[in-house]
Amino acid sequence: MALVYVYRKAHFSASHRLFDPKLTNEQNFEIFGGCSNPNGHGHNYYIEVCIAGEPNPKTGFVIDLKQVKNVLQRYFLNKVDHKNLNVDVDFLTGIIPTTENIAIAAWKQIQPHIAEGKLFSIRLYETENNFAEYRGE
Amino acid sequence: MALVYVYRKAHFSASHRLFDPKLTNEQNFEIFGGCSNPNGHGHNYYIEVCIAGEPNPKTGFVIDLKQVKNVLQRYFLNKVDHKNLNVDVDFLTGIIPTTENIAIAAWKQIQPHIAEGKLFSIRLYETENNFAEYRGE
Amino acid sequence: MALVYVYRKAHFSASHRLFDPKLTNEQNFEIFGGCSNPNGHGHNYYIEVCIAGEPNPKTGFVIDLKQVKNVLQRYFLNKVDHKNLNVDVDFLTGIIPTTENIAIAAWKQIQPHIAEGKLFSIRLYETENNFAEYRGE
Amino acid sequence: MALVYVYRKAHFSASHRLFDPKLTNEQNFEIFGGCSNPNGHGHNYYIEVCIAGEPNPKTGFVIDLKQVKNVLQRYFLNKVDHKNLNVDVDFLTGIIPTTENIAIAAWKQIQPHIAEGKLFSIRLYETENNFAEYRGE
Amino acid sequence: MALVYVYRKAHFSASHRLFDPKLTNEQNFEIFGGCSNPNGHGHNYYIEVCIAGEPNPKTGFVIDLKQVKNVLQRYFLNKVDHKNLNVDVDFLTGIIPTTENIAIAAWKQIQPHIAEGKLFSIRLYETENNFAEYRGE
Amino acid sequence: MALVYVYRKAHFSASHRLFDPKLTNEQNFEIFGGCSNPNGHGHNYYIEVCIAGEPNPKTGFVIDLKQVKNVLQRYFLNKVDHKNLNVDVDFLTGIIPTTENIAIAAWKQIQPHIAEGKLFSIRLYETENNFAEYRGE
Repeated sequence: MALVYVYRKAHFSASHRLFDPKLTNEQNFEIFGGCSNPNGHGHNYYIEVCIAGEPNPKTGFVIDLKQVKNVLQRYFLNKVDHKNLNVDVDFLTGIIPTTENIAIAAWKQIQPHIAEGKLFSIRLYETENNFAEYRGE
Repeated sequence: MALVYVYRKAHFSASHRLFDPKLTNEQNFEIFGGCSNPNGHGHNYYIEVCIAGEPNPKTGFVIDLKQVKNVLQRYFLNKVDHKNLNVDVDFLTGIIPTTENIAIAAWKQIQPHIAEGKLFSIRLYETENNFAEYRGE
Repeated sequence: MALVYVYRKAHFSASHRLFDPKLTNEQNFEIFGGCSNPNGHGHNYYIEVCIAGEPNPKTGFVIDLKQVKNVLQRYFLNKVDHKNLNVDVDFLTGIIPTTENIAIAAWKQIQPHIAEGKLFSIRLYETENNFAEYRGE
Repeated sequence: MALVYVYRKAHFSASHRLFDPKLTNEQNFEIFGGCSNPNGHGHNYYIEVCIAGEPNPKTGFVIDLKQVKNVLQRYFLNKVDHKNLNVDVDFLTGIIPTTENIAIAAWKQIQPHIAEGKLFSIRLYETENNFAEYRGE
Repeated sequence: MALVYVYRKAHFSASHRLFDPKLTNEQNFEIFGGCSNPNGHGHNYYIEVCIAGEPNPKTGFVIDLKQVKNVLQRYFLNKVDHKNLNVDVDFLTGIIPTTENIAIAAWKQIQPHIAEGKLFSIRLYETENNFAEYRGE
Repeated sequence: MALVYVYRKAHFSASHRLFDPKLTNEQNFEIFGGCSNPNGHGHNYYIEVCIAGEPNPKTGFVIDLKQVKNVLQRYFLNKVDHKNLNVDVDFLTGIIPTTENIAIAAWKQIQPHIAEGKLFSIRLYETENNFAEYRGE
């Protein structure tokens, strides 16, 4: 028996603003700097889903990555791509859309729909240089 | 004598919405699809500036790329990074912020400040797969 | 008026074998080396389409890249993705599938369907390090 | 003492077809979709080998990566580069060449020849977006 | 409660030479090959810092990555960028500048200044294909 | 007949220092800043060679890129890889090793050995963000 980790990466474009609505613009600027700019800014995000399991001897797959692609599309990308993460996304209501928090929220969206293997990690790239990973711990 | 093309690439994150304020949301959606989503979306843009000229025999430079970096920072990046391109940028007022139009506008911002060589092209990447180049023609 | 070059990049996976069916395996090996291996090998190809034109003042687009995406999908990617380029592709019949020849053939497939602007170049990446560009000359 | 993980990445181009010879083409298509296309397709694969150990105080190396490069070349790349993974590779006989299975097979090929440190993981990229990692567990 | 790993990546250019001053040039060449070339060679290094912790409910950050950027700049990049790693860097005195040893030394430089979360790993890329990771173990 | 541009990209690691030996260290620092650091620094350079011509009907090649690879290796890479560009390279003697000057010098090294098609351009990447192209004009 062999445990293998399989990965599927996908892209979306979204805008966001880092701010806490309970604070003033000045207080937000102190915490978040230019990231709290009132009219928002945006990113080409990349999400990387990792699933761990043993390859099925009949298919050689831990899970068919086309299935993962479809889950990712339906439960995550359709809701965030070309959207404003502060306003347009039901599962981010009341959440400051930092990379950390989006990764945790993505886990909750995707985890119930992984039918084979176990979701192991969600990595979210905000830029090439800034990213976050959540492993369900 | 030798003509050399030198390039400097830089990054910025911004949000935008493709729409024409003279049209309704429905008409905009027909033209621009999801890119006209009212609350905007965003990108990690890359801009690539190309300057053509003969290397100065004293320095070996067509132009010191640190100078280009500074011009790019002062006259372009400071005005667009972590901004909303529809609302926050003086030199984009009244312009639909497509990749094409941002590249042309960037040329106008940067061209007057290139002190050595001649600005040859501005390439603007909206995503890895979609980009535009303007050569001042 | 301003001439802008817009680019759309896309991906496909295909197998091929470099060989001339009029020659023996030995003669093919002499010309093409390991690339003529009888059972084929393959690549993750990238194709980059460039269209030149003036942005439409109503939309800010030279051409809507979603249109280019659709043309590329319908007339090129659907015919080559997950295919064997020596056997499965009607528009490559009788053509040795080098990067050069695939780029020329792609031009012929795509050019008639570009409704705005003019097709300027097709670049085809066989690997990160080997690629070819055809400009219709 | 300090445990360090060192990595060596390499490239190969190969074709493959996902199918189980005990099933019909139709059954294979149902499981593997376009990946079971009878004439095969291909990829630019990347393999990333990770070895864990303490740097040798005399050299500062966990293991000289040139050694890893040579092992990888001799026991893996020479057998798969510019090959058809279903037909040409002795150590893949009888194995459906999914990313998962190739990663496990690569481990078996490489592990006995790692003379310093311990092989920690093999990561195999089929495309930029689909990959698998095996850690010998 | 949720444990998240956040990453910050940065770039520096440096020269180095792999050699042990207690050995002759010939002995060094035998161990390090072309990497011991007396006049040195160089790389565009990338360093990737990972910090693990729970997002602060007030900010959504494990740690503000701008803080990490500043620590990295002040205690590491300012000392190595555009430098010779054998000669110019106080914290590498007496250390053979292999990727392994630079990663361990970077950990010592950076770890005391991480004010929130815990430093989890330092990954150092010497090239795209050769890299090392240290996790403080 | 069809004109095609074929490209081959390759990598080398080298150190350099930007300075003019006829000037003092202070004068050099004024012109070149940190790039004139006395002990040098270094880069992972990429060189991209472009050759234009008509594909040979017998092979489908403008020129076999393995030939280009060999020319590049023999007349350029062997002389610069893992070297100090100020000291170790015969064809750079007396030349300030800026990206511009290295690209021109590479043209002179490579051009006489291109047996089919015509050398069209040499692009030299010093980093991902700084590069230069020479077209023999």
